[in-house]
Amino acid sequence: MITRLDHVAIAVPDLERAIRRLADDLGLAYAGREDVPTQSTSTAFFPVPGTRIELVHPIDGKGPIAKFLEKRPGGLHHLCFASDNLDADVARLREKGWEFLSPAPTAGAHGSRVIFAHPRCNDGVLVELAEYPGEHQ
Amino acid sequence: MITRLDHVAIAVPDLERAIRRLADDLGLAYAGREDVPTQSTSTAFFPVPGTRIELVHPIDGKGPIAKFLEKRPGGLHHLCFASDNLDADVARLREKGWEFLSPAPTAGAHGSRVIFAHPRCNDGVLVELAEYPGEHQ
Repeated sequence: MITRLDHVAIAVPDLERAIRRLADDLGLAYAGREDVPTQSTSTAFFPVPGTRIELVHPIDGKGPIAKFLEKRPGGLHHLCFASDNLDADVARLREKGWEFLSPAPTAGAHGSRVIFAHPRCNDGVLVELAEYPGEHQ
Repeated sequence: MITRLDHVAIAVPDLERAIRRLADDLGLAYAGREDVPTQSTSTAFFPVPGTRIELVHPIDGKGPIAKFLEKRPGGLHHLCFASDNLDADVARLREKGWEFLSPAPTAGAHGSRVIFAHPRCNDGVLVELAEYPGEHQ
């Protein structure tokens, strides 16, 4: 089952500038960065109660975030929901007609397994599902 | 100061269908609807730990959500952060160069006072700030 909104991802053209804006302007706590080479994406995390803001930026100008930024100045990129049984949730959603961008989950940040649903299943919203180590039920 | 991510708003072309998707497919708890006539917007809420998913849909085909949906099938519309002193936060952010879409806060859902920052201040992301009754410090 879905247990929480794990994070909201914002694609940004200048990661350092966006980190300063969230930390210095909005006063959010900055929890560090992590590169996700499988997605060609550099990420920066800001925990807020119950969830996180995640800035996403292309590594070496490549990957899905680079493509997103070709057409936009930045923007809300995706929502990620945490699951306590990713395989069961994916199977259930497939039965309801959801389509996923990969046949099976791949490696995400913080040791998670993640999978993205096709935006056409969600009125144009890219939805990620993630299962974290130690959270499997 | 900013105290939490209050909600993530998703613009949807069919509110009933989107409510069913979040409730029946994802299994999120549905907490009801509220119309916000000042924004020509009908809203539906799904509380998740620490924050809420808010579906937004135009009332009578008018207002900012209708305009947003003219160009898109739906999508992530804005982030809202809760403030425990909205006037002080807005003044501080104005000093840092943030621009707002209205000169002063207006009435939002659940008795809140809200104001939207211009997306150009946030890499294209529409950011709302809200202060709720009883949360003023």
